[in-house]
Amino acid sequence: MKLIIGNKNYSSWSLRAWLAAKQSGLAFEELTVPIYGEDWEQRKRSSDELAPSSGKVPILWDGDAVVWDSLAIIEYLADKVGRDRFWPKADEARAMARSMVAEMHSSYLPLRRTCPMNIRARVEGVAIDGEVRADVVRILQLWAEARARFGKGGPFLFGTFCAADVIYAPVVSRFLTYGIAVPGFAQVYMQAVWEHEWMQAWIAAASAEDWVIEQFETPVIG
Amino acid sequence: MKLIIGNKNYSSWSLRAWLAAKQSGLAFEELTVPIYGEDWEQRKRSSDELAPSSGKVPILWDGDAVVWDSLAIIEYLADKVGRDRFWPKADEARAMARSMVAEMHSSYLPLRRTCPMNIRARVEGVAIDGEVRADVVRILQLWAEARARFGKGGPFLFGTFCAADVIYAPVVSRFLTYGIAVPGFAQVYMQAVWEHEWMQAWIAAASAEDWVIEQFETPVIG
Repeated sequence: MKLIIGNKNYSSWSLRAWLAAKQSGLAFEELTVPIYGEDWEQRKRSSDELAPSSGKVPILWDGDAVVWDSLAIIEYLADKVGRDRFWPKADEARAMARSMVAEMHSSYLPLRRTCPMNIRARVEGVAIDGEVRADVVRILQLWAEARARFGKGGPFLFGTFCAADVIYAPVVSRFLTYGIAVPGFAQVYMQAVWEHEWMQAWIAAASAEDWVIEQFETPVIG
Repeated sequence: MKLIIGNKNYSSWSLRAWLAAKQSGLAFEELTVPIYGEDWEQRKRSSDELAPSSGKVPILWDGDAVVWDSLAIIEYLADKVGRDRFWPKADEARAMARSMVAEMHSSYLPLRRTCPMNIRARVEGVAIDGEVRADVVRILQLWAEARARFGKGGPFLFGTFCAADVIYAPVVSRFLTYGIAVPGFAQVYMQAVWEHEWMQAWIAAASAEDWVIEQFETPVIG
């Protein structure tokens, strides 16, 4: 398998796909394509490997099978190695995990626009109000409920590390980057994600990257 | 199981969840909650049944398990009745189906905003250009590739009716409502979807609804 990802510092969907590939336990080769670089537009048009997604990352190639969305990558890998490696076993827990993962996949645009993932940065003064605040409140509500109802078996949302943690990992990074105040239970959860060995490996690689994407370094205020 | 949906004429995500429930072959009760009605805000706040999603529809209740997103509903039902009822068996086909379903789930906002689902209406004069046109082109490209590579066994995207058709069914409705010109292969596909017995049942119910939501009756021009 070959996983094509964007810059580790900025590409939140790449982080998700990469954590999913790690979670699968399968061997995979990774290829980082710096997004928004000077040859990005050219590369999108000319690369057969990027063609199925119109140039968006991440993309997983598994022989001739190609998967170009991180949630689809999770499901495709779960098809290969078994659902239980990615999703809680119990119906009620899995129902909630699947729902909150889908909600992240389609929602929270104000948070995503105002607070782009920027792993190595610490930014002060971004206004977290209005729609952005509503997104933060909703996410914290979901985290709280998952932890309270299903989190007994470990420090992650549903106890052991699963697809829900994979999908919300970039949110953990955003909350840290923009200094978003969260209650104690969330601080504990975020620390567990941040200290996970795969996250630590990703963070180290992100910190070592030279690429700077200006539009992600200048958050929109308010 | 109980499926809570919005107005059949307007709620595209409800259509998807309902088709998924039909595809599961399981018995389910359905409850239509008219969205944007005068008691909608009140109902969102006061209904325990709508609480897990903050009042968004669709919501599937299966005993104490609750699933509040249509893609999550597809996956949850596939967990119950077997993946093959929702997804192609072959890896390459399933990889593409999963990817294009995920793309619909997270993308095409310009198309969705400019051309809201409105099953019983036929609207002329909406400008399909710029970002909306790009969405249409991308969707037609995906449909063409799926049909050409994997559509031999029947008239649907991957031959027999599957999750990809469930997810793109509201797009078929939009293309018809706004008179979007499509090539012949797409006309044939859209006709197969429109004439599917479940779609016909949904269309009849949508046409019988009295509710009118003004904001979906006045598309933004351009």
